[in-house]
Amino acid sequence: MSQDILTETGKSKKGLRRQIEERGRELAYLQRKCRELGIPVLVVVEGLSAAGKGTIINQMIQPLDPRGFKVSCIASPNRDEQLRPFLWRFWRRTPSANRMAIFDRSWYRNLLDAEISGELSESDLRKAYADVRAFERQLRDGGTTILKFFLRITKKEQAARLAALQGNPATAWRVSDAVLARHARYKDYQKAVDHMFEETDLEEEAPWRRIDSKNLRNATFEALGYLVDALRKRVEQCKAANPLFEGKRLTELSCFSDAPSLKKSDLSLRLEKEAYREIIEARQSRIQELHNELYRLRIPLVIVYEGWDASGKGGNIRRLTEQMDPRGYEVIPVSAPNDVEKAHHYLWRFWREFPKAGHVTIFDRSWYGRVLVERVEGFCSEADWKQAYNEINEMEENFRHFGTVLVKFWVHIDKEEQLRRFQAREASSHKRWKLHEEDWRNREKWDLYESAVEEMFLRTHAPKAPWTVIEGNCKRHARVKALDVVIDAIEKKIKSLE
Amino acid sequence: MSQDILTETGKSKKGLRRQIEERGRELAYLQRKCRELGIPVLVVVEGLSAAGKGTIINQMIQPLDPRGFKVSCIASPNRDEQLRPFLWRFWRRTPSANRMAIFDRSWYRNLLDAEISGELSESDLRKAYADVRAFERQLRDGGTTILKFFLRITKKEQAARLAALQGNPATAWRVSDAVLARHARYKDYQKAVDHMFEETDLEEEAPWRRIDSKNLRNATFEALGYLVDALRKRVEQCKAANPLFEGKRLTELSCFSDAPSLKKSDLSLRLEKEAYREIIEARQSRIQELHNELYRLRIPLVIVYEGWDASGKGGNIRRLTEQMDPRGYEVIPVSAPNDVEKAHHYLWRFWREFPKAGHVTIFDRSWYGRVLVERVEGFCSEADWKQAYNEINEMEENFRHFGTVLVKFWVHIDKEEQLRRFQAREASSHKRWKLHEEDWRNREKWDLYESAVEEMFLRTHAPKAPWTVIEGNCKRHARVKALDVVIDAIEKKIKSLE
Repeated sequence: MSQDILTETGKSKKGLRRQIEERGRELAYLQRKCRELGIPVLVVVEGLSAAGKGTIINQMIQPLDPRGFKVSCIASPNRDEQLRPFLWRFWRRTPSANRMAIFDRSWYRNLLDAEISGELSESDLRKAYADVRAFERQLRDGGTTILKFFLRITKKEQAARLAALQGNPATAWRVSDAVLARHARYKDYQKAVDHMFEETDLEEEAPWRRIDSKNLRNATFEALGYLVDALRKRVEQCKAANPLFEGKRLTELSCFSDAPSLKKSDLSLRLEKEAYREIIEARQSRIQELHNELYRLRIPLVIVYEGWDASGKGGNIRRLTEQMDPRGYEVIPVSAPNDVEKAHHYLWRFWREFPKAGHVTIFDRSWYGRVLVERVEGFCSEADWKQAYNEINEMEENFRHFGTVLVKFWVHIDKEEQLRRFQAREASSHKRWKLHEEDWRNREKWDLYESAVEEMFLRTHAPKAPWTVIEGNCKRHARVKALDVVIDAIEKKIKSLE
Repeated sequence: MSQDILTETGKSKKGLRRQIEERGRELAYLQRKCRELGIPVLVVVEGLSAAGKGTIINQMIQPLDPRGFKVSCIASPNRDEQLRPFLWRFWRRTPSANRMAIFDRSWYRNLLDAEISGELSESDLRKAYADVRAFERQLRDGGTTILKFFLRITKKEQAARLAALQGNPATAWRVSDAVLARHARYKDYQKAVDHMFEETDLEEEAPWRRIDSKNLRNATFEALGYLVDALRKRVEQCKAANPLFEGKRLTELSCFSDAPSLKKSDLSLRLEKEAYREIIEARQSRIQELHNELYRLRIPLVIVYEGWDASGKGGNIRRLTEQMDPRGYEVIPVSAPNDVEKAHHYLWRFWREFPKAGHVTIFDRSWYGRVLVERVEGFCSEADWKQAYNEINEMEENFRHFGTVLVKFWVHIDKEEQLRRFQAREASSHKRWKLHEEDWRNREKWDLYESAVEEMFLRTHAPKAPWTVIEGNCKRHARVKALDVVIDAIEKKIKSLE
């Protein structure tokens, strides 16, 4: 297709071709600069069938260094993707700090199709667009340059191009019934597109670039122009300032009044051995039943474990999972990010681990590291961790839109109990490996961590994503309480579906 | 299910439970040791329906540190996986150097199902088992410890367990029609299992551990015993020697007599500008048509570009792809592996990039780095790169079993031409970035690289995976020749299907 259309252009063909080449060279130069400066670039190319998305993208990538970009072609979500929140598959594909990700169709495709098919209610669609705005804003705040192109095509032109494709035996198969059905509903699509613009054409921050694609060579020239301008601006900005904090305006911080508090926790709570044995078995068998129910009802469950060193998170998780089917749960231990993870948005690695619908993922430490260890140890800037509260709330809200049950634990012990446990570890040959130099160092910063925890509660204890403090001085009490809270959360969710 | 079955056991219940705990502690210790020593561990648990795979795996993982293992549950391949060679999804899940991967069912599941359904011919099944043996051997040679368990269950016991599951409303859904159908064909499955043992029960190297699963507590105890023994042996071996080279016996090296040769290449081949313009356009439009055909016929195409620095690989690839639809091809530039890649088998990152059926992947440098740069620069041991010839041949054969078209290019220039191009790059402001210190250093080792290239041709120019030397002193000639070879390879493949 591309060739025929490209050769249709008027008299200035040769001049235009030279100008396109010139812009291509500039783009190649800017791509290298972005790589040097660690700027992730995300390009979205949307448009109705036969608008020429493929042709323009191929022109765009020709001058680029293939070490630096990746084209993702977005079809309907596959089964694995359908079992996750709809942004999951896009989060996974966000570019790292020196890459360019080019999307041939995108998250917008999902939403256009959903609007046309009526598969999302109006209010769900509104929520989905809010999620999209948050997604793009988070990436932007993380330093990503986002460009969104929409290729316009008239119904008449679309008809002509589809006919041309059908006329050629090598391309006829591309005009499927689905494509023809979309063509027939051209007007409805236009309406959905206008709605998309209303929701997501954000002047300053994330504008849509509408491009008339009747003449694909002109359209290419125009798209390259936008791309070159945007990247040049970004590169100059970055040279002037630290790229990652530039342009980040702190949104107002959330604050939840009924948040729990470490100070108010009663660490004297205990459970005796005899009672424990009986209760734990009953709870484990209940959780086993509910685990089956979750699977049957396709409800995903995410459990976050945060807490002091030596507070007993590991043992607690083991009691929770002991009678579960390993095919349905996974424990994700979170430690410092590796190279690849560091080059992405800090939420990227957590999005990737989101459970399939019907499955359980238990995070042993989590995204809250941003506002705990990273804050206290200075691994990120103050603007970064402050921004994180909202980003985390948005992510968890996004999970909820997908029907996820979310449980968040802080396993709490006091400083004396921690000391006892550290000493016991030192004394025991088969537990010594659990104790590190770092643990002693963290202990010295107890007060700093404590205030970080209290602020975390205050800012992220959302009504539907509440924190629970597990009083952990008595491990038996802690284990039963964790089971109780999880059981309760699942039962409530199941009831709400009835 | 797990609980009921575990409590059924006889009098020594308590003693056995203690012994299981004891072995669990030992296993946890060995897991840490394996991590310290960088030993990847792969555990396969196979067995017919209701044999207790889930229960035993959950017992196995309870004592483990969750930072160190991952359970993969293998269902039927999803659409994305069906579009790749059947080992693709398992390669992606192989453990890295300090991890344990536990498979609840595995590649064997595919083959058992395929044998029962008759979906693979006898000869295809034989090839698939050969691929499996090569897969396991390659991992073993890379230092992975593999343990394969098969849980035996009688038809009577299976019937009883299925009935118990059906009797409980929380688990009844697990007994699907497919499970019942498999139960009815118990005998056929036994036959397929026996066949599997014949093909893959390799005494010394990769034995199957058959475990009677009538009593799941005993079975757990037995499985833990095998696991502890194997890991202890491996850990001791590693302490004594370099883990990665231990146990690797060099298989006989392949040698193909009709391999091409750099020395015999005619670098005087040229193509004039006028002729070039005409030919290139015709070829590009032919490749565009064939690209559509590949897609329609679901044929994957893999193209490998190797060649001297400044031989013009990038420009050559650009001419090849210029008129292709970007939705159907991808260029993978290969440079030094990152942390995550280094922690895996060196073929892991290439398997991951294997194209979907109907798509094209172009590797700009490739797995041949093992026998070129890694050999010459000493990035791996001699045993490693020597072993690589066979491993590469096996991988490419595996691709072929899946119907892949494979084209391998060496873009050749002589030393004088390279010098001219280096100097031209130095002189040009917009090409200077392409030239690195490293390029000059590599140039000094021209002769070493040359003999590595000649040996690579000799050992990997398999009849169905031939090398083509592209004479590259004249870039125009090189571009047209590459297009011609690719066109020819696709046309041959299509013809073979008619």
